[in-house]
Amino acid sequence: MVRPVSDPRYEIQPIGRVESPLVDPATAPKQGREGAPDAWLRFDPGVREGLRDLRVGAELIVLTWLDRARRDVLVVHPRDDPANPETGVFSTRSADRPNPIGLHRVQILAIDGTRLRVADLEAVDGTPIVDVKPILPGD
Amino acid sequence: MVRPVSDPRYEIQPIGRVESPLVDPATAPKQGREGAPDAWLRFDPGVREGLRDLRVGAELIVLTWLDRARRDVLVVHPRDDPANPETGVFSTRSADRPNPIGLHRVQILAIDGTRLRVADLEAVDGTPIVDVKPILPGD
Repeated sequence: MVRPVSDPRYEIQPIGRVESPLVDPATAPKQGREGAPDAWLRFDPGVREGLRDLRVGAELIVLTWLDRARRDVLVVHPRDDPANPETGVFSTRSADRPNPIGLHRVQILAIDGTRLRVADLEAVDGTPIVDVKPILPGD
Repeated sequence: MVRPVSDPRYEIQPIGRVESPLVDPATAPKQGREGAPDAWLRFDPGVREGLRDLRVGAELIVLTWLDRARRDVLVVHPRDDPANPETGVFSTRSADRPNPIGLHRVQILAIDGTRLRVADLEAVDGTPIVDVKPILPGD
Protein backbone atom coordinates (compact mmCIF):
# COMPACT_ATOMS: atom_id res chain seq x y z
CA MET A 1 0.00 0.00 0.00
CA VAL A 2 1.02 3.58 -0.49
CA ARG A 3 1.27 4.73 3.12
CA PRO A 4 2.80 2.25 5.55
CA VAL A 5 2.64 4.65 8.50
CA SER A 6 -0.43 5.21 10.64
CA ASP A 7 -1.98 8.61 10.01
CA PRO A 8 -5.06 9.86 11.87
CA ARG A 9 -6.01 12.10 8.94
CA TYR A 10 -6.90 8.90 7.09
CA GLU A 11 -8.99 7.44 9.86
CA ILE A 12 -12.70 6.83 9.43
CA GLN A 13 -14.74 8.36 12.26
CA PRO A 14 -18.05 6.50 12.33
CA ILE A 15 -20.99 8.91 12.42
CA GLY A 16 -23.44 6.25 13.56
CA ARG A 17 -24.42 2.60 13.41
CA VAL A 18 -26.91 0.41 11.58
CA GLU A 19 -29.67 -1.16 13.67
CA SER A 20 -30.99 -4.16 11.79
CA PRO A 21 -32.52 -7.58 12.38
CA LEU A 22 -29.66 -8.92 10.21
CA VAL A 23 -26.87 -10.23 12.41
CA ASP A 24 -24.98 -12.79 10.31
CA PRO A 25 -23.02 -11.52 7.29
CA ALA A 26 -22.94 -15.04 5.86
CA THR A 27 -26.71 -15.25 5.50
CA ALA A 28 -27.52 -11.56 4.90
CA PRO A 29 -28.71 -10.61 1.39
CA LYS A 30 -25.89 -9.54 -0.92
CA GLN A 31 -27.71 -6.42 -2.04
CA GLY A 32 -30.54 -4.33 -0.60
CA ARG A 33 -32.99 -5.24 -3.35
CA GLU A 34 -32.55 -8.95 -2.74
CA GLY A 35 -34.94 -9.16 0.18
CA ALA A 36 -33.08 -7.03 2.71
CA PRO A 37 -35.16 -5.72 5.60
CA ASP A 38 -35.88 -2.20 6.69
CA ALA A 39 -33.38 -0.88 9.22
CA TRP A 40 -32.63 2.12 11.39
CA LEU A 41 -29.63 4.33 10.89
CA ARG A 42 -28.80 5.60 14.39
CA PHE A 43 -26.56 8.66 14.14
CA ASP A 44 -24.28 10.10 16.76
CA PRO A 45 -25.91 13.18 18.34
CA GLY A 46 -22.77 15.12 17.41
CA VAL A 47 -23.69 15.07 13.70
CA ARG A 48 -27.32 16.16 14.17
CA GLU A 49 -26.83 19.44 12.32
CA GLY A 50 -25.64 17.59 9.23
CA LEU A 51 -28.91 15.64 9.08
CA ARG A 52 -31.28 18.59 9.39
CA ASP A 53 -32.32 18.82 5.74
CA LEU A 54 -33.11 15.14 5.20
CA ARG A 55 -36.77 14.40 4.52
CA VAL A 56 -39.01 11.32 4.46
CA GLY A 57 -39.14 9.90 0.95
CA ALA A 58 -35.67 11.06 -0.08
CA GLU A 59 -33.35 8.55 -1.72
CA LEU A 60 -29.81 8.48 -0.37
CA ILE A 61 -26.48 6.84 -0.79
CA VAL A 62 -25.28 5.46 2.53
CA LEU A 63 -21.62 4.52 2.93
CA THR A 64 -20.69 2.06 5.66
CA TRP A 65 -17.47 0.52 6.96
CA LEU A 66 -17.80 -3.25 6.68
CA ASP A 67 -15.76 -3.94 9.77
CA ARG A 68 -16.06 -7.72 9.55
CA ALA A 69 -14.59 -7.90 6.04
CA ARG A 70 -11.11 -9.10 5.08
CA ARG A 71 -8.83 -6.35 3.82
CA ASP A 72 -6.11 -8.65 2.42
CA VAL A 73 -8.20 -10.09 -0.41
CA LEU A 74 -7.85 -9.00 -4.06
CA VAL A 75 -9.72 -11.78 -5.89
CA VAL A 76 -12.96 -13.48 -4.86
CA HIS A 77 -15.56 -15.88 -6.14
CA PRO A 78 -18.45 -13.46 -6.76
CA ARG A 79 -21.40 -13.87 -4.43
CA ASP A 80 -19.32 -16.32 -2.35
CA ASP A 81 -20.20 -19.03 -4.87
CA PRO A 82 -17.24 -21.31 -5.71
CA ALA A 83 -18.89 -22.01 -9.07
CA ASN A 84 -18.23 -18.40 -10.09
CA PRO A 85 -14.69 -17.89 -11.45
CA GLU A 86 -12.28 -15.85 -9.36
CA THR A 87 -12.65 -12.16 -10.13
CA GLY A 88 -10.67 -9.07 -9.16
CA VAL A 89 -12.42 -7.39 -6.23
CA PHE A 90 -12.66 -4.03 -8.03
CA SER A 91 -15.00 -5.74 -10.53
CA THR A 92 -17.23 -7.01 -7.72
CA ARG A 93 -19.23 -5.63 -4.81
CA SER A 94 -17.61 -8.06 -2.36
CA ALA A 95 -17.28 -6.76 1.19
CA ASP A 96 -13.75 -8.17 1.21
CA ARG A 97 -11.45 -5.53 -0.34
CA PRO A 98 -8.60 -3.25 0.77
CA ASN A 99 -10.94 -0.54 2.06
CA PRO A 100 -14.21 -2.27 2.99
CA ILE A 101 -16.65 0.52 2.25
CA GLY A 102 -20.22 -0.54 1.65
CA LEU A 103 -22.34 1.49 -0.77
CA HIS A 104 -26.09 1.29 -0.29
CA ARG A 105 -28.90 3.12 -2.06
CA VAL A 106 -31.85 3.51 0.29
CA GLN A 107 -35.03 5.52 0.78
CA ILE A 108 -35.99 7.29 4.02
CA LEU A 109 -39.21 5.84 5.47
CA ALA A 110 -39.28 7.78 8.74
CA ILE A 111 -37.23 10.19 10.82
CA ASP A 112 -37.08 10.06 14.63
CA GLY A 113 -34.59 12.59 16.00
CA THR A 114 -31.19 11.37 14.90
CA ARG A 115 -32.52 8.03 13.68
CA LEU A 116 -33.57 7.39 10.09
CA ARG A 117 -35.73 4.43 9.11
CA VAL A 118 -34.67 3.18 5.68
CA ALA A 119 -35.86 0.47 3.30
CA ASP A 120 -33.89 -2.46 1.90
CA LEU A 121 -30.55 -2.27 3.70
CA GLU A 122 -28.34 -5.37 3.59
CA ALA A 123 -25.78 -4.17 6.17
CA VAL A 124 -25.77 -6.18 9.41
CA ASP A 125 -26.59 -4.86 12.88
CA GLY A 126 -23.86 -2.66 14.33
CA THR A 127 -22.19 -1.78 11.02
CA PRO A 128 -20.54 1.66 11.32
CA ILE A 129 -21.99 4.42 9.12
CA VAL A 130 -19.38 6.54 7.34
CA ASP A 131 -21.31 9.00 5.21
CA VAL A 132 -24.69 9.88 3.70
CA LYS A 133 -25.02 11.61 0.35
CA PRO A 134 -27.92 12.75 -1.80
CA ILE A 135 -28.34 11.11 -5.19
CA LEU A 136 -27.50 13.30 -8.16
CA PRO A 137 -28.68 12.93 -11.76
CA GLY A 138 -26.27 10.54 -13.40
CA ASP A 139 -25.35 8.60 -10.25
CA MET B 1 -17.90 11.11 17.29
CA VAL B 2 -18.44 7.55 18.34
CA ARG B 3 -14.82 6.40 18.74
CA PRO B 4 -12.42 8.88 20.35
CA VAL B 5 -9.50 6.45 20.30
CA SER B 6 -7.28 5.85 17.27
CA ASP B 7 -7.85 2.43 15.72
CA PRO B 8 -5.89 1.16 12.71
CA ARG B 9 -8.79 -1.07 11.69
CA TYR B 10 -10.63 2.09 10.74
CA GLU B 11 -7.79 3.57 8.72
CA ILE B 12 -8.09 4.15 4.99
CA GLN B 13 -5.20 2.62 3.06
CA PRO B 14 -5.03 4.48 -0.26
CA ILE B 15 -4.84 2.06 -3.19
CA GLY B 16 -3.61 4.71 -5.61
CA ARG B 17 -3.72 8.36 -6.60
CA VAL B 18 -5.49 10.53 -9.16
CA GLU B 19 -3.31 12.10 -11.86
CA SER B 20 -5.15 15.09 -13.26
CA PRO B 21 -4.52 18.52 -14.76
CA LEU B 22 -6.79 19.85 -11.99
CA VAL B 23 -4.70 21.18 -9.12
CA ASP B 24 -6.87 23.73 -7.31
CA PRO B 25 -9.94 22.45 -5.46
CA ALA B 26 -11.38 25.99 -5.43
CA THR B 27 -11.61 26.18 -9.21
CA ALA B 28 -12.18 22.49 -10.04
CA PRO B 29 -15.65 21.53 -11.33
CA LYS B 30 -18.05 20.48 -8.58
CA GLN B 31 -19.12 17.34 -10.45
CA GLY B 32 -17.58 15.26 -13.21
CA ARG B 33 -20.24 16.15 -15.75
CA GLU B 34 -19.66 19.86 -15.32
CA GLY B 35 -16.63 20.07 -17.59
CA ALA B 36 -14.16 17.94 -15.64
CA PRO B 37 -11.19 16.63 -17.64
CA ASP B 38 -10.07 13.12 -18.30
CA ALA B 39 -7.62 11.80 -15.70
CA TRP B 40 -5.46 8.80 -14.87
CA LEU B 41 -6.08 6.60 -11.88
CA ARG B 42 -2.60 5.35 -10.93
CA PHE B 43 -2.91 2.29 -8.69
CA ASP B 44 -0.38 0.88 -6.31
CA PRO B 45 1.27 -2.21 -7.87
CA GLY B 46 0.25 -4.16 -4.77
CA VAL B 47 -3.43 -4.12 -5.82
CA ARG B 48 -2.83 -5.22 -9.43
CA GLU B 49 -4.71 -8.50 -8.98
CA GLY B 50 -7.84 -6.66 -7.92
CA LEU B 51 -7.87 -4.72 -11.20
CA ARG B 52 -7.49 -7.65 -13.53
CA ASP B 53 -11.10 -7.91 -14.71
CA LEU B 54 -11.62 -4.23 -15.53
CA ARG B 55 -12.18 -3.51 -19.23
CA VAL B 56 -12.18 -0.43 -21.45
CA GLY B 57 -15.69 0.96 -21.73
CA ALA B 58 -16.82 -0.16 -18.29
CA GLU B 59 -18.54 2.34 -16.03
CA LEU B 60 -17.31 2.42 -12.46
CA ILE B 61 -17.85 4.07 -9.13
CA VAL B 62 -14.57 5.46 -7.82
CA LEU B 63 -14.30 6.41 -4.16
CA THR B 64 -11.62 8.89 -3.15
CA TRP B 65 -10.43 10.43 0.11
CA LEU B 66 -10.70 14.21 -0.23
CA ASP B 67 -7.67 14.92 1.91
CA ARG B 68 -7.90 18.70 1.61
CA ALA B 69 -11.46 18.85 2.95
CA ARG B 70 -12.54 20.05 6.38
CA ARG B 71 -13.90 17.32 8.64
CA ASP B 72 -15.37 19.62 11.31
CA VAL B 73 -18.13 21.05 9.13
CA LEU B 74 -21.79 19.94 9.35
CA VAL B 75 -23.56 22.71 7.41
CA VAL B 76 -22.42 24.42 4.20
CA HIS B 77 -23.62 26.81 1.55
CA PRO B 78 -24.15 24.38 -1.35
CA ARG B 79 -21.71 24.80 -4.22
CA ASP B 80 -19.72 27.27 -2.07
CA ASP B 81 -22.21 29.96 -3.03
CA PRO B 82 -23.15 32.24 -0.12
CA ALA B 83 -26.46 32.94 -1.88
CA ASN B 84 -27.49 29.32 -1.25
CA PRO B 85 -28.96 28.82 2.23
CA GLU B 86 -26.95 26.77 4.71
CA THR B 87 -27.70 23.08 4.33
CA GLY B 88 -26.78 20.00 6.35
CA VAL B 89 -23.79 18.31 4.69
CA PHE B 90 -25.57 14.96 4.41
CA SER B 91 -28.01 16.63 1.98
CA THR B 92 -25.12 17.92 -0.15
CA ARG B 93 -22.14 16.55 -2.05
CA SER B 94 -19.76 18.99 -0.35
CA ALA B 95 -16.21 17.70 0.10
CA ASP B 96 -16.31 19.13 3.63
CA ARG B 97 -17.95 16.48 5.86
CA PRO B 98 -16.93 14.22 8.77
CA ASN B 99 -15.55 11.49 6.47
CA PRO B 100 -14.51 13.21 3.24
CA ILE B 101 -15.16 10.41 0.77
CA GLY B 102 -15.64 11.48 -2.82
CA LEU B 103 -18.00 9.43 -5.01
CA HIS B 104 -17.37 9.62 -8.75
CA ARG B 105 -19.05 7.79 -11.60
CA VAL B 106 -16.60 7.40 -14.48
CA GLN B 107 -16.00 5.38 -17.63
CA ILE B 108 -12.73 3.61 -18.47
CA LEU B 109 -11.16 5.06 -21.64
CA ALA B 110 -7.88 3.12 -21.61
CA ILE B 111 -5.87 0.72 -19.48
CA ASP B 112 -2.07 0.86 -19.20
CA GLY B 113 -0.78 -1.64 -16.66
CA THR B 114 -1.99 -0.44 -13.28
CA ARG B 115 -3.18 2.90 -14.68
CA LEU B 116 -6.73 3.53 -15.84
CA ARG B 117 -7.64 6.49 -18.04
CA VAL B 118 -11.12 7.73 -17.11
CA ALA B 119 -13.45 10.43 -18.40
CA ASP B 120 -14.91 13.37 -16.48
CA LEU B 121 -13.25 13.18 -13.07
CA GLU B 122 -13.46 16.28 -10.89
CA ALA B 123 -10.95 15.11 -8.24
CA VAL B 124 -7.72 17.12 -8.12
CA ASP B 125 -4.23 15.80 -8.82
CA GLY B 126 -2.86 13.64 -6.03
CA THR B 127 -6.21 12.74 -4.48
CA PRO B 128 -5.96 9.30 -2.80
CA ILE B 129 -8.09 6.54 -4.31
CA VAL B 130 -9.96 4.42 -1.75
CA ASP B 131 -12.02 1.95 -3.77
CA VAL B 132 -13.40 1.05 -7.18
CA LYS B 133 -16.76 -0.69 -7.62
CA PRO B 134 -18.79 -1.85 -10.58
CA ILE B 135 -22.17 -0.22 -11.15
CA LEU B 136 -25.15 -2.41 -10.39
CA PRO B 137 -28.71 -2.04 -11.70
CA GLY B 138 -30.45 0.35 -9.33
CA ASP B 139 -27.35 2.32 -8.32
